[in-house]
Amino acid sequence: MATTQTRRRADAERNIAAILDAALAVFTEEPQSSMAAIARAAGVGRVTLYAHFASREVLLEAVLDRTIAEAGVIIAEAELAKGSAVEALRRLLRTSWHVLDQHRKLFDLAQRELGSVQLRQRHREVVDHVEGLLARGQQEGVIRADLPISWLVTTVYSLLHAAAEDVNSGQLKAEEAADVLEATLLPALRS
Amino acid sequence: MATTQTRRRADAERNIAAILDAALAVFTEEPQSSMAAIARAAGVGRVTLYAHFASREVLLEAVLDRTIAEAGVIIAEAELAKGSAVEALRRLLRTSWHVLDQHRKLFDLAQRELGSVQLRQRHREVVDHVEGLLARGQQEGVIRADLPISWLVTTVYSLLHAAAEDVNSGQLKAEEAADVLEATLLPALRS
Repeated sequence: MATTQTRRRADAERNIAAILDAALAVFTEEPQSSMAAIARAAGVGRVTLYAHFASREVLLEAVLDRTIAEAGVIIAEAELAKGSAVEALRRLLRTSWHVLDQHRKLFDLAQRELGSVQLRQRHREVVDHVEGLLARGQQEGVIRADLPISWLVTTVYSLLHAAAEDVNSGQLKAEEAADVLEATLLPALRS
Repeated sequence: MATTQTRRRADAERNIAAILDAALAVFTEEPQSSMAAIARAAGVGRVTLYAHFASREVLLEAVLDRTIAEAGVIIAEAELAKGSAVEALRRLLRTSWHVLDQHRKLFDLAQRELGSVQLRQRHREVVDHVEGLLARGQQEGVIRADLPISWLVTTVYSLLHAAAEDVNSGQLKAEEAADVLEATLLPALRS
């Protein structure tokens, strides 16, 4: 009995992973795709898909949360506590842009379907890294302390996502975005 | 016959103006309101409402376009061609924030319902003022010329709208936003 339950749980986990992988690919390539198309791409039936994700919105939120959690891990690996806060900020901007660049289309879809307020709330884990680093920079006297730190975080978050939109619309080259972001944000943030 | 036509046209124009006024108020106060609620607020029948605006989306676009056109007039009155480009940029930021602050809720709704790409496209008239002024500042050597001008425009547009979102979410005080925007944008844009 326990064996059957274990097997069922393993099956469910495999299905969920396959659905999230397929949904990420489908949302990125064909944002308007239906749940039926996602089920096909994941190799599961529609009943299985809906058993795990009750709606397209729930599925989009799950894909987004997994992507942001992965971004959080990659940003943590940039070791923001090491070196000067300005150097760490440069690493953070490059790492964040690199991750965001891979998921530009997903974020565009999420912005439209979930709204920018919810999108920002779901970035909490990533945004906390930015806030922690800026607070360290303020203590070290290299990041400006004359503006609310929440606004400095908004500035970083907004311009990163604005760069992704400009790349999506063809106004900015993806390979130039990291340099452009650093050149814009450092003078805005330094004391 | 001509008199009847003239009267009909005047009636139609009066109805359209009443609908746009009512829609602006209703979208701002109760963003989820139905077309029926907007018809009631405008004092017109649903048939009249739909005769002028075929859908909620068309109506929202019309309200937005009128609001942006009004913003364009107000910004033009700030006489951006006069004085130094940096002083004119300060006037532009304050004027733009003042107009945006009055319409924060409308832009929040438009962002969710129309998407940020279309929202930006509809701002062309306003954005052109920003671009013209930044180009003058580059010629005068006071605005940086090391980054694409389209990105400098994106920076201004994005941070203005980010400030509106932070005010909407209670993170930033409306009366501090203009100072905060100027303090962030001037170091990011100056050469």
